[in-house]
Amino acid sequence: MPNTKAYAAYAPDQDLKPFEFDRRSVGDDDVKVKIDYCGICHSDIHFAHDDWGMTEYPVVPGHEIIGHVTEVGSKVTRFKPGDLVGIGCMVDSCRECTPCKNDLEQFCEKGMVMTYGSPDPEMGGVTQGGYSSQIVVKEHFVLNISDKLDLKGVPPLLCAGITTFSPLNQWKVGKGQKVGVIGLGGLGHMGVKFAAAMGAEVVMITRSPEKGEDAKRLGASSVLVSTDQEAMASQAGTFDFLLNTIPVAHDINPYMPLLKFNKTMVLVGATPIEVHSMQMIFGNRHLSGSLIGGIKETQEMLDFCAEHNIVSDIEMVNIQDVNTAYERVMKGDVKYRFVIDMKSL
Amino acid sequence: MPNTKAYAAYAPDQDLKPFEFDRRSVGDDDVKVKIDYCGICHSDIHFAHDDWGMTEYPVVPGHEIIGHVTEVGSKVTRFKPGDLVGIGCMVDSCRECTPCKNDLEQFCEKGMVMTYGSPDPEMGGVTQGGYSSQIVVKEHFVLNISDKLDLKGVPPLLCAGITTFSPLNQWKVGKGQKVGVIGLGGLGHMGVKFAAAMGAEVVMITRSPEKGEDAKRLGASSVLVSTDQEAMASQAGTFDFLLNTIPVAHDINPYMPLLKFNKTMVLVGATPIEVHSMQMIFGNRHLSGSLIGGIKETQEMLDFCAEHNIVSDIEMVNIQDVNTAYERVMKGDVKYRFVIDMKSL
Repeated sequence: MPNTKAYAAYAPDQDLKPFEFDRRSVGDDDVKVKIDYCGICHSDIHFAHDDWGMTEYPVVPGHEIIGHVTEVGSKVTRFKPGDLVGIGCMVDSCRECTPCKNDLEQFCEKGMVMTYGSPDPEMGGVTQGGYSSQIVVKEHFVLNISDKLDLKGVPPLLCAGITTFSPLNQWKVGKGQKVGVIGLGGLGHMGVKFAAAMGAEVVMITRSPEKGEDAKRLGASSVLVSTDQEAMASQAGTFDFLLNTIPVAHDINPYMPLLKFNKTMVLVGATPIEVHSMQMIFGNRHLSGSLIGGIKETQEMLDFCAEHNIVSDIEMVNIQDVNTAYERVMKGDVKYRFVIDMKSL
Repeated sequence: MPNTKAYAAYAPDQDLKPFEFDRRSVGDDDVKVKIDYCGICHSDIHFAHDDWGMTEYPVVPGHEIIGHVTEVGSKVTRFKPGDLVGIGCMVDSCRECTPCKNDLEQFCEKGMVMTYGSPDPEMGGVTQGGYSSQIVVKEHFVLNISDKLDLKGVPPLLCAGITTFSPLNQWKVGKGQKVGVIGLGGLGHMGVKFAAAMGAEVVMITRSPEKGEDAKRLGASSVLVSTDQEAMASQAGTFDFLLNTIPVAHDINPYMPLLKFNKTMVLVGATPIEVHSMQMIFGNRHLSGSLIGGIKETQEMLDFCAEHNIVSDIEMVNIQDVNTAYERVMKGDVKYRFVIDMKSL
């Protein structure tokens, strides 16, 4: 009888249904975790629906995992049974290449092993994620979670959190800076919380003025409506940093002139964009992409959250409601992330 | 009788025809220059044709100016009559704002005064450029030119040269780096020369394999044909820097994966582009714009050219042939820049 209960997406209808499979037994440097909560990330939906043409069915999504350690291998030093831990988007990498040695496992030259949907170097087949009762992960990829935080809001930190924290951290956002967060969804709401906690003046930039109140509750000091050309023009050349979280194809020409010269917009949404080079040439402006963060930086983010009492705003659901939750995410009908209570499995 | 002969573009037919006007008399910090040569830049054509909707006719184009000093104001210390000098894209700025104080006059907060087509703070009307017999310019904006160089090829250094030198210089291109130059025109051919002289391994990236021989003559060590998907895939993740000089709307998705992680493509062509953020997110890759360079860096570029014997490959024309030259530039029929011999005026 398989040792792990889960929900998996199946072809051809792509709905998630009950699934059982075997996790590997605990190796010397492995940590076994009983999963308490798992966040629902938009990537889970793209993967379940094979939007990126790389899905092997059945697949168990989920890379925002919070749980308790139940067993550790003989060489594990940082964890013991009972510890509260997290697992994010990666569960392995080569640990020997230049990016790995520089704490950038997400750029491992041999390819990071993603928490689900990657070729599984230990078991064959593909890795299976966190919509499951338990998981076995190498110690290096297991994160410490502070019990000071409201645990239910912690899972999204492991993807939405690090995705927005990393660029704000890398570009040294802080006091005295004016930072714009474009788009108020799962990523954007974390971006506002982090940038405000880092001490920046945060401006929520959105097409939807009705999002203003919530943006201010989250930490924005003001709201800039991107369809208001006069307002946009009045703030041209005043921003030190822009975090663009828009998840659908769009034109960034209206936003680039908001930046001071030599400043940067970072894209974290996976989407096609258009821009006229003149918007970047006049002002030597920069556009960058940013992919999650390495394990070391993810731990720094979690520690920052514990220090500043930051979690995600979430709605809790049972695993049986995951297909409905997916539909609501696709309609943008969630403030701001769903988390699955794995007790319901 | 006006003191300056020139050729200007007129509305509505936009052709260039003879024009006469008055330059200002020499002020305390002014340098008067008799113009020997003036390069033809694609921007001149955009301006003459009012492609950017900002042209006041008649306009005298030309911002790649080489000549000899004929008179200096009482406070001028760096020049004397007879000196060989250059004037590029700017003739004034506020000199007091943060960008100006940091030798980035092109980002002057009050707006740089362009060599032609800007409101003229001294004379009223708009500034008039280098397709003319003489020019009067503030000392700060006048550049030293080495008489070691073949003068005929020097004018394009003042725009095509600094436009490509500055990003290569700012991103510290040099030995041990693999640099791709995309597009082999007026800008691209300077990019290849500079990157090679800086010590980098230069790869010419082009859709046109027939440009390969010339690229190698200019300093490229190899040619990568961008329509050859196999060749492009084989060089994915191997470039330290990409200089994109393509002057027409294009999709940069095929080029971004050539970069190593955390590396940059700089755009210097004025054109709309498309990119999928995934090409930047996977690899934390960067895209930047770059606008000419400040006066200090332009002088550094000219000194670098004198040290490495670098000039532009040019075709010399008489001023009477400027309209034909414009047509040939628009067809891409020049290797690699036209220079006007002002003796013909």
